[in-house]
Amino acid sequence: MAVAVALIQGASRGLGLQFCKHILQNKKPSAVIATCRNPDAAAELLSLAGQHKDRLTVVRLDVNREEDIREAAKRVKESFGRLDLLLNSSALLHPSGKGETSLRDVTAQGIISTLTTNTVGPLVMAKYFAPLLQKGAGGFGQQPPEKSKQHSGIIVNITAKVGSIGDNGLGGWYSYRMSKAALNMATRNLSIELGRSRPKVVCVALHPGTVDTDLSRPYHRNVPKERLFSTEHSVSCLMSIIETLDSDKTGQAYSWDGAQLPW
Amino acid sequence: MAVAVALIQGASRGLGLQFCKHILQNKKPSAVIATCRNPDAAAELLSLAGQHKDRLTVVRLDVNREEDIREAAKRVKESFGRLDLLLNSSALLHPSGKGETSLRDVTAQGIISTLTTNTVGPLVMAKYFAPLLQKGAGGFGQQPPEKSKQHSGIIVNITAKVGSIGDNGLGGWYSYRMSKAALNMATRNLSIELGRSRPKVVCVALHPGTVDTDLSRPYHRNVPKERLFSTEHSVSCLMSIIETLDSDKTGQAYSWDGAQLPW
Repeated sequence: MAVAVALIQGASRGLGLQFCKHILQNKKPSAVIATCRNPDAAAELLSLAGQHKDRLTVVRLDVNREEDIREAAKRVKESFGRLDLLLNSSALLHPSGKGETSLRDVTAQGIISTLTTNTVGPLVMAKYFAPLLQKGAGGFGQQPPEKSKQHSGIIVNITAKVGSIGDNGLGGWYSYRMSKAALNMATRNLSIELGRSRPKVVCVALHPGTVDTDLSRPYHRNVPKERLFSTEHSVSCLMSIIETLDSDKTGQAYSWDGAQLPW
Repeated sequence: MAVAVALIQGASRGLGLQFCKHILQNKKPSAVIATCRNPDAAAELLSLAGQHKDRLTVVRLDVNREEDIREAAKRVKESFGRLDLLLNSSALLHPSGKGETSLRDVTAQGIISTLTTNTVGPLVMAKYFAPLLQKGAGGFGQQPPEKSKQHSGIIVNITAKVGSIGDNGLGGWYSYRMSKAALNMATRNLSIELGRSRPKVVCVALHPGTVDTDLSRPYHRNVPKERLFSTEHSVSCLMSIIETLDSDKTGQAYSWDGAQLPW
């Protein structure tokens, strides 16, 4: 049985870190490449790597630096020659740490920084890792018996329900909402381009629910307790979805409970 | 009867220039503020201004420079004290002039430049002109008899059908598609925030069809003749839609024929 190879981008904390833990614990045999901007400051990730010396590799990667991404892809190619899952997890709400509550808070630089990290980064990741995903062993998701419908790899972009234009009834959070809407478009575009290759690469956007992470913590006051997920619960739900993905499900956005999200 | 005051952003050529001509010819009394990056190079716009000295004001404005936008809003405030229509027209397909046909063509800088002009620019325009639109005389669109549903101003962002995520079946054009999807989200957000004021500001995204402009010209080969619009025809269709807008129609994207576009 081939080792399932996953790369988790934005793995120093929150959802990304939990994806690493979950895969190491539940998916065997597997190998995980965990990327983050500053490994030296990622104590928990380094400790995890210490416990899984042969299975977890930590790679320094700033998603805003194309040369970092190119270099990381080269390393993964040298070590594994392929990739089965690329999961883009890192995101920021706004450089200030606070989503815009009104137009007064909107600045060009705030939007551009948010778009650069949340949208451009994941797409440039897809650009450099697509060739490795096209050589993947299909270690994640479900493979139908028809060879023409099988997939070699999966790209998961973590989106958010507030990135759904049709679902937007509240407004605010301009930069974050725009970044996730644009990421949804990028995901859709990727699914089309990488759905043409044989075998295919499946591309989806997943909404993790409202999760207790640094990004969302300032906004938990009005969230009912049963809707505020631990990273463990959210990642467990999302991994269940990932393991049911096939090429029929590509090009869509799904919520933690499997429901399709409107664009 | 109050003078209807319109600001057309990106008015040196193409759709923007035609919006100026159309309003000057068909909407009376009206005044038009036409903005463009480099008025000295906008011969046709300057000639139009020569013909309509009292009604058309040309203002230098680079949508990528927040200080230009702030300064332009100050000038409009001093001259008119209000605004009835803000129309964001300028857009680029990609800095190279060619939309990406595949992931290989995607670069971080190309996406960021496209997003900055097509998405960030229109939103920052909305930020600085919203206070003037909230003081508008409602000179464009339709006013229902109920005072609570009346609008003072309208924001139109020119979007594109290829910016619809749900409608995307072809892929490619990553930067442009993402910029328009994010602009659709910005428009939706604006409609919510500016729908709370009394009177309201109506915000919509409009798709002009496939129009014979510099942006789309390299891609006309496969467009059936009857689907390739002159700027005159497209703007005439879009102005018909604008003149039927009211607060019930805010927060949506419409095509040149009035059909609602999916997100």
